Amino acid sequence: MTTPLEVHRLFYDAVETGDVDLMASLWVEDPATSCVHLGTMPLRGTAQVLRSWTVVMAGVGYIQFFLTDVEVVTLPRGASDPDTAVITCTENVLSAEGLALDAEAFAGGKAVSTSIVVRVGGGWKIWSRHASPIAELMLEEDQ
Amino acid sequence: MTTPLEVHRLFYDAVETGDVDLMASLWVEDPATSCVHLGTMPLRGTAQVLRSWTVVMAGVGYIQFFLTDVEVVTLPRGASDPDTAVITCTENVLSAEGLALDAEAFAGGKAVSTSIVVRVGGGWKIWSRHASPIAELMLEEDQ
Repeated sequence: MTTPLEVHRLFYDAVETGDVDLMASLWVEDPATSCVHLGTMPLRGTAQVLRSWTVVMAGVGYIQFFLTDVEVVTLPRGASDPDTAVITCTENVLSAEGLALDAEAFAGGKAVSTSIVVRVGGGWKIWSRHASPIAELMLEEDQ
Repeated sequence: MTTPLEVHRLFYDAVETGDVDLMASLWVEDPATSCVHLGTMPLRGTAQVLRSWTVVMAGVGYIQFFLTDVEVVTLPRGASDPDTAVITCTENVLSAEGLALDAEAFAGGKAVSTSIVVRVGGGWKIWSRHASPIAELMLEEDQ
């Protein structure tokens, strides 16, 4: 029995440890799931989403996520048996300098993410993830 | 009786016409709703979200959204009476040049958004919105 927050944390564990199998176990298997990496168009369908994470993780060496402002809301609001959870957080990312981080090019930066996690059987799995850069990140390039 | 897609379209109508009352009518009234404007931290709670949209709309003159790749998924998946809808789309934005667009600084650019719309009574309202820039936008500043 996982909770939405446990799945959310396992997602970052998977990226940190480059664990492709763990990552695959966390997502709903469906052609309509979606994932927006930093600055990119949405990817659609679990096969494509997992392929992208495999590429991202292959290009990342040391990486660690410090999550702040984690907020979980379950839907329907007030339901005793919610079927959906929305989790927003700030991702403070620490990574080895100079590595090619591909689609998720944060390198010691900050991003925000909104994840949608849904009940599947007795547990929860990821349905959708949307990550975006905080403007500071973009402004740094102008300095 | 609105549908998730109708609410999604009305949201853009509200921005295009600067209709603060229409915008307010579209959101669930709850301290846990959320909105991520382009490049910003999440705003939390409908009061704060609507305040931000009022500021954005006050700073925008002519603006028009051409939505492409609109994808709607209802949750729970396969349910005959879904309570949640996830809508992703690409926002192709046409706006008068030189205007201060504040938090949503697109000015003829592209963004992607993930909106979470929930059933409220007989209709649907917006629970969460997460918009982010497409990388081309950021790269243009380097040219």
